[in-house]
Parts: sequence; C-alpha cells; structure tokens
Amino acid sequence: MTFSIKKNYNLSRIGELKLSHGIVQTPNFMPVGTYGVVKGLSSDVLKSIGCQIKLANTFHLWLSPGLEIIKKHKDLHNFTNWDKPILTDSGGFQVFSLSKLSKVTKEGVYFRSPINGDRCFLSPEKSMEIQTVLGSDIAMIFDECLPYTTDIDATKKSMELSNYWAYKSKKSFGNSANKLFGIIQGGFHFDLRKESLKALNEIGFDGYALGGLSVGESKKEMYEIVNSIAPLMPIDRPRYLMGVGTPLDILEAVKSGIDLFDCVIPTRNARNGFLYTTKGIVKIRNSKYAIDIDPVDESCECYTCNNFTKSFLHYLQKRKEMLGAQLNTIHNLSFYLDLMKKIRSSIQENSFNTLHETFKLNYSNHDKI
Amino acid sequence: MTFSIKKNYNLSRIGELKLSHGIVQTPNFMPVGTYGVVKGLSSDVLKSIGCQIKLANTFHLWLSPGLEIIKKHKDLHNFTNWDKPILTDSGGFQVFSLSKLSKVTKEGVYFRSPINGDRCFLSPEKSMEIQTVLGSDIAMIFDECLPYTTDIDATKKSMELSNYWAYKSKKSFGNSANKLFGIIQGGFHFDLRKESLKALNEIGFDGYALGGLSVGESKKEMYEIVNSIAPLMPIDRPRYLMGVGTPLDILEAVKSGIDLFDCVIPTRNARNGFLYTTKGIVKIRNSKYAIDIDPVDESCECYTCNNFTKSFLHYLQKRKEMLGAQLNTIHNLSFYLDLMKKIRSSIQENSFNTLHETFKLNYSNHDKI
Repeated sequence: MTFSIKKNYNLSRIGELKLSHGIVQTPNFMPVGTYGVVKGLSSDVLKSIGCQIKLANTFHLWLSPGLEIIKKHKDLHNFTNWDKPILTDSGGFQVFSLSKLSKVTKEGVYFRSPINGDRCFLSPEKSMEIQTVLGSDIAMIFDECLPYTTDIDATKKSMELSNYWAYKSKKSFGNSANKLFGIIQGGFHFDLRKESLKALNEIGFDGYALGGLSVGESKKEMYEIVNSIAPLMPIDRPRYLMGVGTPLDILEAVKSGIDLFDCVIPTRNARNGFLYTTKGIVKIRNSKYAIDIDPVDESCECYTCNNFTKSFLHYLQKRKEMLGAQLNTIHNLSFYLDLMKKIRSSIQENSFNTLHETFKLNYSNHDKI
Repeated sequence: MTFSIKKNYNLSRIGELKLSHGIVQTPNFMPVGTYGVVKGLSSDVLKSIGCQIKLANTFHLWLSPGLEIIKKHKDLHNFTNWDKPILTDSGGFQVFSLSKLSKVTKEGVYFRSPINGDRCFLSPEKSMEIQTVLGSDIAMIFDECLPYTTDIDATKKSMELSNYWAYKSKKSFGNSANKLFGIIQGGFHFDLRKESLKALNEIGFDGYALGGLSVGESKKEMYEIVNSIAPLMPIDRPRYLMGVGTPLDILEAVKSGIDLFDCVIPTRNARNGFLYTTKGIVKIRNSKYAIDIDPVDESCECYTCNNFTKSFLHYLQKRKEMLGAQLNTIHNLSFYLDLMKKIRSSIQENSFNTLHETFKLNYSNHDKI
C-alpha cells in the first residue's frame, strides 16, 4: 500500500506515503527548489530541519542543466545529493507563465526558451520523459494553466484539454516504481472541478492535486474550491494542494482533508526578511530589531533561533549578506515543517480545531504581507 | 608564554599562539569576515573546515552595526556566535582606501562615512577603543596606509606618522588580556622598513606585522621586502604578513619565517568560481565542466568535494545560486587551511622545500588569475 491513513479527525487525516526514496508523513509541506535546490541550503541543512520531500521544477531543470547532465548523474537525487523523495511539477505552470508562447495545440505547447530564445516543445509525453529522467518519486501530469479568469467557457475548454493531457500523461508514464498524480482543473466553477475530478478518476492516478489556485483569486474563492472539492477527492489517495500557501491557508485546507502542500512563501519571504513566529510575522528589517538580542522566536528550536539574535539577523539583512538569507530560510522552513508536525499531532490528539483557532488569532494580520 | 616555537626548519617555524579564545597553530591562515562573518558561512561551517582564527574589519563593524550593538551582545564573538579567536585590523587600511578623506592630522584622520556621508574621526585611541569593544584576541595598531608609491620622502613621512600612532595605540590599549600587534611600514625601501621595525621594537608589541604590501607592487618587490625583513622581526613573537596572498605567496613567506596570513583571495575567488586544487586552479564556469561528474579535487576531503560534482557546481555558478558561492567558499578555505596544515607537517618533517617546489610546479600559472 503506497498511502495509508493512520487517523481521521473530521475531514482531516494523518497518513503515510511510501515512496521510492522514503516515507512522507502527511499532512506535509514540500519546500520549493526551483533549480533542484532550495536557495542557499545544502541538502544536509534541508534534512537537518526535518524536510521529508522537496519539490523541483521540471521546466527549469529541463532547460538548465538539461537532461543529458542529469542522466550522467543518474538522476536529480544524485545531482543535488538529496537521497529523500522528490516531487516534480510537470512544467505546465511555468510554460504558461514564464515563456513566450508560440502555439498551443492538442499535442502540446510550442514556445521560446526564456533562457536563450530557443524554440521548444513541451507535451504530456515530453513532460513524462523529463520527469522520468529526473527520477521524481512523484511526477505530475502535464496540464494547461490559465491565468485567473472567471470565464466559464475558456475554463471549460482548458480543463478539457488538461484532462486529455492527463490521459496522455498516464499513457506514456509507463510502468514506473514512481507515482503519477492527476491535477484537477476547472477554475472557480464547482461543476467544472467536479467534471475534471470525475474524468481523472476514470483514468486513475496514484494521487490527486488541486491545480490552478493561488493565481490571483481572493482567499474566499480559493477556500470555496478547496472546501468543496477536497472532500470529494478519492479518500484513499494523497491529496495535494498546489502552490499554497500561508500557514492559515494550510490549516484551512488540512481541515478539508488536504495532505500535501508546496509553496515559495516561506523561502521567498525569508530572503526578504519576513520571519514566521508563533506570535505572528517578524519583519527583520524593521529598525526596532537593530538592538534586539532575543532570538526571532523564543519558543523555536531551529538552528537560527538557537544561535543568533534578531539584532544579528537584522544586520545581515541590512548588509545583504547571504548568510542572512540562509539563516532566515532555515528559520522559516523550520517553522513550516514544525507547523506540519503540530498539525499531525493535533489530528492524532483530536485538538486540530484548537490549533487552527490559535493560528487564526496570531495571524490575523498575516495576509497583509 | 603567549607564543612558543615548537620546531624550526631553516627560517621557517611551527609555533603555538595562546589567545583568550583558544590556541592557534602557526603557520596559519585567517579567513576574512569583513562584516564579522565570512560571506555565506555560519560560524559552525567555518569551524567544521578547521578554521582556528578569523579576521574581522574594525572599520566596517564600527560603522555598521556600530559599538552600541556589539556591546549589547558583549563582544563580536557573541554577536557572530564564534567562540574561537578573532583578529581585527585597525581600520587604517579601509579609512585610506574606502572613504573620502577630509584631513589627516597627527591626532588622526577626519573622513566621510562611505555608508551615510557622516563626518567621522578615527585615531589610534579610537581604534583601540573599538577593537576593545569588539573583544579582539589580537588588535592591530592604527597606521597610515599609502597607496603604492616608490617616493622615498612620502614613504618616510608616512612611516614616521604610523610609528607615532603605534606608540599612541600601545599607550591607550591598556592592560588587556588580549594582544596588540605592531605594523612595520616603510614601503619598498629596506632602510625605512628597518627603521620602522626598530621603532616598533622599542615600543614593544605582542607580535609584529608587515603592512603596506599587496598594494599594486610586483611580486618581486613584495618578496624582496618579505625575504629581507621577516628574518629581522623578533624571533620570539608571531610574525604576520597582512593581506597576502596566493598559495605561492604564502609558501614564499613561510620560507622567510612568517607565521600568520589573511587574504580575501580564497573567499572572493570562490564566489567568482575560481577553485584551488592540488593540480592548479579550476575555473568552474568553464563549459568543459558542465558535464564533468568528478569532484573539484579527487584528493580533497572537504564537504564540497565529498558530496558534489564539478557539473553541479558549474550549474550553480551559472544560475547564480548562492549555494554555489557557499560550496565554493567551503572548498577554497578547506584548501587554504589544508595547505597550512601541510606546511606545518612539512616543517615538522624537514620537507618544507619539497612541498614548496611541488606547489611552484602546479601553480606556475596561478598569478594569471
């Protein structure tokens, strides 16, 4: 059994996901390593803060360093010296958001490389091939990613293309020891989401993701989709909410039964000096921290909080010293991974609602960042 | 006894320097932490590669974060979480090279802060005060630093001012558990250097440094001064060659009896992708390394070489990923600290000349970088 649920609490659940490179306890969060590495952190540091699975971007790695170099190292694990699980996205999101599109056909997408302007073609088959070379423990189907829209016809058309590509992805993925997840599209229309889920279910995947969120919609719109669709997703398969989110977003989604998350928020915010604490966000650039010799969070046991003062981190941030970005990233990822641990414990102990309410109270200002 | 010599080999020697925060085995190399930290490396990483003493810049730390913040942390050791020895320069070199000078008087230097344009004044007394607040295990006297010149009158006048400031520095340094080193000036004139050394000797310091080198002169000019003056420096005190240099410079100076070095070369070169190996320099940006799955140096046992390929480092460098700068810095500092270890062993085993000749052979192209 790849995925086993250990305990339920209302719609929330704790589970264990067995992958080629190890076990992932769910709910869990995947730090984003665009180019295969989380900016500034070696694999050992990432491991030391309790990361069980990282996400890497297929699109970026395909363009650079390219498949030949990854193959020469055997896979992305060896290339980046990371022996734990990796999930890769399909490249769909990036091809639609980062590159100059030439043409979208039923077969795939023609576009210009944002690195060197080369003509490129990405398709379900190509995406599966790349993710197989990367050796991803979890590959994602290739899908079309629309920018935020409420146009029902455009959304339906795109969802149908994505479902066709999901079918093509599954067909070409082959008999791999690794897993393939489907991605539910359908924008902000409940019926389209349900239709997408039904079609994916018929194809059959190892896990299911909610895609096309966090694209500019309101929190309310996002939560409505998550709260209404997550409970309908196959109960015996991992459920992954892509590209989300803040601590509150994560808690809200766990409440509806989501198991996996990824987001650039903790790492990007860290580099910009926004640090998460149990009491809310510390903006380390703020001059009031210049002479504050307490750690970022008294109750945090991460390497950064155990060894350095807010004053020192403020100083590194002001001086743009890269050690600052590293120490901040260690702290924020520790905070996120610790939050996931707390979520798992609270489900185990039937106290998830209390945890959720506490965070709501402390993070009432959070979304302003 | 603060400094004890354990073994001599011709003019070279191995020694032990006992400081407030630990013992430094000499000959040794001090990585440069301009703002108190070696760019990209936490104190723990620095320790893990065998660093026994780091150098920090008085001038930079005085201007930012400033003395109040350092005092609040007790000292620079606590601020940067580094419990081993620290040597600080006096600020002399930076005040003359980085700031807009207003006036140089017998009392000190009036200048504009390069950070905010504030009027500042640095003097022997002020430099000693700052270095005392920093808690430096080794403080340096405040001196004037000329740009490269062969003008004997200007050099003599500057040397005399520096000697006067050396006297004032000693006088105001007080009874500290920490050490104060004098700095021999006199440019590229043997007689002036001797005069400077004599004057400093009369004042009496815990150690002696050769300053005013690596300012644009030829290797020949530098080596002539080092080779002729080092042997005249007090035999029972540590001898420090400031701001030097390449592996070959270090070997050449150890041959003349120098014990301590500092230089930005290994760290700055690391960030630029120039990596030291026993076989010469690897320019990691070179496209031939894109697909090279060997470590930077087969015979190196550093963290970087143990875990990553040249191909991966090439990729990080091309993508300007800060992990690349870190891993390169770990490698280069490991190489430098390993070189110092080899130098000490070779003096112990009377094989220093062989080591020196081997490096000359492998680094014949080195100075081109």
